[in-house]
Amino acid sequence: MVGIIMGSLSDRKVMQEAADALNELGIAYEMEIVSAHRTPERMLEYAVSARSRGLKVIVAGAGGAAHLPGMVASLTSLPVIGVPVLSSNSIDGWDSVLSILQMPSGVPVATVALNGARNAGILAAQIIGAGDAAVAERLDLFKNNLKQKVADMNEQLKMNL
Amino acid sequence: MVGIIMGSLSDRKVMQEAADALNELGIAYEMEIVSAHRTPERMLEYAVSARSRGLKVIVAGAGGAAHLPGMVASLTSLPVIGVPVLSSNSIDGWDSVLSILQMPSGVPVATVALNGARNAGILAAQIIGAGDAAVAERLDLFKNNLKQKVADMNEQLKMNL
Amino acid sequence: MVGIIMGSLSDRKVMQEAADALNELGIAYEMEIVSAHRTPERMLEYAVSARSRGLKVIVAGAGGAAHLPGMVASLTSLPVIGVPVLSSNSIDGWDSVLSILQMPSGVPVATVALNGARNAGILAAQIIGAGDAAVAERLDLFKNNLKQKVADMNEQLKMNL
Amino acid sequence: MVGIIMGSLSDRKVMQEAADALNELGIAYEMEIVSAHRTPERMLEYAVSARSRGLKVIVAGAGGAAHLPGMVASLTSLPVIGVPVLSSNSIDGWDSVLSILQMPSGVPVATVALNGARNAGILAAQIIGAGDAAVAERLDLFKNNLKQKVADMNEQLKMNL
Amino acid sequence: MVGIIMGSLSDRKVMQEAADALNELGIAYEMEIVSAHRTPERMLEYAVSARSRGLKVIVAGAGGAAHLPGMVASLTSLPVIGVPVLSSNSIDGWDSVLSILQMPSGVPVATVALNGARNAGILAAQIIGAGDAAVAERLDLFKNNLKQKVADMNEQLKMNL
Amino acid sequence: MVGIIMGSLSDRKVMQEAADALNELGIAYEMEIVSAHRTPERMLEYAVSARSRGLKVIVAGAGGAAHLPGMVASLTSLPVIGVPVLSSNSIDGWDSVLSILQMPSGVPVATVALNGARNAGILAAQIIGAGDAAVAERLDLFKNNLKQKVADMNEQLKMNL
Amino acid sequence: MVGIIMGSLSDRKVMQEAADALNELGIAYEMEIVSAHRTPERMLEYAVSARSRGLKVIVAGAGGAAHLPGMVASLTSLPVIGVPVLSSNSIDGWDSVLSILQMPSGVPVATVALNGARNAGILAAQIIGAGDAAVAERLDLFKNNLKQKVADMNEQLKMNL
Amino acid sequence: MVGIIMGSLSDRKVMQEAADALNELGIAYEMEIVSAHRTPERMLEYAVSARSRGLKVIVAGAGGAAHLPGMVASLTSLPVIGVPVLSSNSIDGWDSVLSILQMPSGVPVATVALNGARNAGILAAQIIGAGDAAVAERLDLFKNNLKQKVADMNEQLKMNL
Repeated sequence: MVGIIMGSLSDRKVMQEAADALNELGIAYEMEIVSAHRTPERMLEYAVSARSRGLKVIVAGAGGAAHLPGMVASLTSLPVIGVPVLSSNSIDGWDSVLSILQMPSGVPVATVALNGARNAGILAAQIIGAGDAAVAERLDLFKNNLKQKVADMNEQLKMNL
Repeated sequence: MVGIIMGSLSDRKVMQEAADALNELGIAYEMEIVSAHRTPERMLEYAVSARSRGLKVIVAGAGGAAHLPGMVASLTSLPVIGVPVLSSNSIDGWDSVLSILQMPSGVPVATVALNGARNAGILAAQIIGAGDAAVAERLDLFKNNLKQKVADMNEQLKMNL
Repeated sequence: MVGIIMGSLSDRKVMQEAADALNELGIAYEMEIVSAHRTPERMLEYAVSARSRGLKVIVAGAGGAAHLPGMVASLTSLPVIGVPVLSSNSIDGWDSVLSILQMPSGVPVATVALNGARNAGILAAQIIGAGDAAVAERLDLFKNNLKQKVADMNEQLKMNL
Repeated sequence: MVGIIMGSLSDRKVMQEAADALNELGIAYEMEIVSAHRTPERMLEYAVSARSRGLKVIVAGAGGAAHLPGMVASLTSLPVIGVPVLSSNSIDGWDSVLSILQMPSGVPVATVALNGARNAGILAAQIIGAGDAAVAERLDLFKNNLKQKVADMNEQLKMNL
Repeated sequence: MVGIIMGSLSDRKVMQEAADALNELGIAYEMEIVSAHRTPERMLEYAVSARSRGLKVIVAGAGGAAHLPGMVASLTSLPVIGVPVLSSNSIDGWDSVLSILQMPSGVPVATVALNGARNAGILAAQIIGAGDAAVAERLDLFKNNLKQKVADMNEQLKMNL
Repeated sequence: MVGIIMGSLSDRKVMQEAADALNELGIAYEMEIVSAHRTPERMLEYAVSARSRGLKVIVAGAGGAAHLPGMVASLTSLPVIGVPVLSSNSIDGWDSVLSILQMPSGVPVATVALNGARNAGILAAQIIGAGDAAVAERLDLFKNNLKQKVADMNEQLKMNL
Repeated sequence: MVGIIMGSLSDRKVMQEAADALNELGIAYEMEIVSAHRTPERMLEYAVSARSRGLKVIVAGAGGAAHLPGMVASLTSLPVIGVPVLSSNSIDGWDSVLSILQMPSGVPVATVALNGARNAGILAAQIIGAGDAAVAERLDLFKNNLKQKVADMNEQLKMNL
Repeated sequence: MVGIIMGSLSDRKVMQEAADALNELGIAYEMEIVSAHRTPERMLEYAVSARSRGLKVIVAGAGGAAHLPGMVASLTSLPVIGVPVLSSNSIDGWDSVLSILQMPSGVPVATVALNGARNAGILAAQIIGAGDAAVAERLDLFKNNLKQKVADMNEQLKMNL
């Protein structure tokens, strides 16, 4: 089970892609809004109980001064994947990227690209697949599909030269 | 009473300047290491009890993905001043500046310049002085001293032309 | 009483959010256009007389090479909150952020996020609330509303899964 | 077993911290220099055979236009952790950070902070610990040690006030 | 013969300008989608066989963490021209620019401006023209056309003063 | 007569190069420390009286949130040249560059390179030389000296091949 | 007489504002497209003959790798004002700003803000006004108009509170 | 024959690496200081006569507002390789990188990494090798040496584990 959390409903559009990737890869997930700055106590509760509730990985997305992924990582020893979300009034996304990525020694956050929620979902599956052969197999199929897509694009390119 | 906190002992050298400014302006303070990422529960406790313990302002300094000022601000309605500290392995200070400054709507942090702990101390005094005539008077004297320093520098300049 | 000033009428849309926050928190304010570069003498007058006219905090917004907050801070010992406004022809907002934030030692400006006028209003209330129990109580209620909004968003999220 | 690779011997000093963290957490690892740009065929071989050789996670560090982590991730479905290394002639580390972080959809790299190899080691352990209770327990102890370090720093701070 | 490759069909619109420039300058080319991250083995094959298939120059365009130009350059001793493409979710293009430009010692990529595919095509022609007088002559004519365009623009300017 | 001003004695080392250039070009100057933030009233006085005291150009240097050049320009219609000085705790000089360069419409500052005080001196001479044939002639000689220096460097290069 | 030049007709929209400002201030100008990269010989001719043709100041605008202002400055001892123009495919304007501003010692360019052509026109007038009392007087009137505009904006603000 | 030029003797230390690479690859070169800003006429002469003097490629290095590579490219149809040199008072190298890379359509510069003169030399050889089998063979040997260096580093690593 993967826990997907985000700081605001406005992050939903981006973060849904993590859920979609997990769906495609047959991994269960739950999704909830947990705000580091507006519901800090709920965040603490969520993170502290995560392992015992059966979560294996947490995917946390946030924008601006994005403290959610790092704070959750400070409260659990589960792997936490951080998704920098490009929010309105962001300074080109640098704020969320740097406040998720640049964690101090001792408390890592596995950061993906700006708005890279789909990759966060895939990475969560890879983490589960590190110890689960069935998931690993599905990931290998998934990789083959990427190749197929490039083949399809080449067909389109040729028809269009 | 002003509460000065910082994420690590390595921030001490910078943050001491906040304490020094408060000393010069005759404002009491306490100083403690409170790490958002290593002692999140202690941080919660510190912030939640701050007003009832008599603090008027909190000055919080941190480097890298600097979550301490913002997280404390999420847990108290006291004014929180954030000091971005230039830590080792920082990307030129941008990480701490942006993760302190770019707080979402509803939870402000009063951010000062990179390594600007002295200004954080002065700002804390100004906040107290907003409702305290004696402190305000000391601040006006302090401002006059700044003028005097420029006059002294002009003396030096002239002797050196 | 909080003084809200801005460099140009084009900053109004952003700066109105400071006024709105103060309204919600029951704090009186005045609002005026004071330009550091076009009306420097008026700026001086405004800042120098601010404390005696009963202002407790000044909120100053400006874009580009944004000198208004820092110059006002150089002329009064009241706390000054700076709002970097994203103006047209700005270089992604970096210009206003850095020219407000990076004040020299001795003259702090309490800087909030890019276009973060709402937070400037809240911070002004927090500064007043540092020494005023009634305001502090309203701020605590305000904080609870933030929690409620997250609960509401979770309701919406569930209905939409 | 964790595979630690790096583009050049000059990355060793930084990358050794990943090995040290894994040692502290009792996780086996192997370490090798594999250069995306100088030994691309060896990189392909390494990545393609990684899962069958028993690796669970790969930690890859590189500087400048840092292609090693992303290319390895394109060749295996194991989780790949990328460490941006600050190399000489880097543009402040931005080059390695962005060329590791900003992976396209379909091929995630779990990126940690600039020079954050210690966190890469901890993250690798967390990934293994996601499905291994004994490792998870050691990670929880490790987290408690972080708290203890802050307590120790507070002792030092008090003796020094 | 120039080989034009790109990581995705979405790069086509930009990369077509390289083909158009080569057409104008009478240089043959082939065009194909080759993705470093989705078809790494195909990329290897393409690069390794490039010289023997008669290519003289390779023009490679990619966005985000743009590894295609550098990886191809690691696999052939032909000159490789890299075109940083501004992709969606890019951080203002910095990611593709830096991951193409900042190649380590030993493996150069001739980088052109962001979205500068037209210049990549012209540069490919210049490379061929370094040893081919007929191409060089066409390039000189091309340069004269640039002058003529400025003359035309001055006509328009005068009519519009 | 050129007026050279700077915000602090610590800017002297850089700003002296403006004076040296003016000396070489035979242009009179005066030099003084005038701080926008510590002596705002003195700054006003300086700027307002500048033209009547016989100044033709003002060269103003400052670091960090560098308001001196822009504020002086708001108070006089003389041409003002701004020198961004790289100060300690600057964010790589971006703060002073942007707070001098990005002036709003109506109030220009002629900005030179980071620490480019020598060029500020030359520019001041060029401004005076725009209406003074003797100065123009000295500037042309000065330009010839630049050529001679390159010739000398080529001599050295040849002896060293 | 002021010479206004620009690298391309696409810069016209921005550069026209320099002409407009000069018109308002009663200063004659000529306007022409002179491209450093497409018509380098014409640029040389333009710059070398500028003083003898009666120009007092040159205003040069360009985008991207903007070499026109600096190259013209290398060819004349007249003051040259550089206008960084935000062109398509620019990296947020940083390219034109830095390639105009960061001139080496000996060859200054008076740089104004991104797209700041209006200020370039005003600065050109100030340079002429440094030695021309009538122009200086018009500039002082112009400064008063700026004050009046702020007064007008305050009227509008009051009607709209 | 490759022409290596640079703006100043201070660029020599970096640019010598281009010469060294050409020496290793058995390609003749000449080296000279040609400054865009101090000797613009000499630069014109150099570039215009380059092809007829037998040059096949030009390698041009410069720092700050680095106009040399682009201006030379505007004056010849030979391929021009630009080396951004990190000069003193540079803003972290961004100025030279962007003023070399971001050339307008029609006039490409083949840009290499910051201080990447060695790669410029190799690229020059690759350009010559595009039409010269003997050079191509030497380049392939050179590539094999890179592989051998990695093997050697792995030996050292093993002895040091």
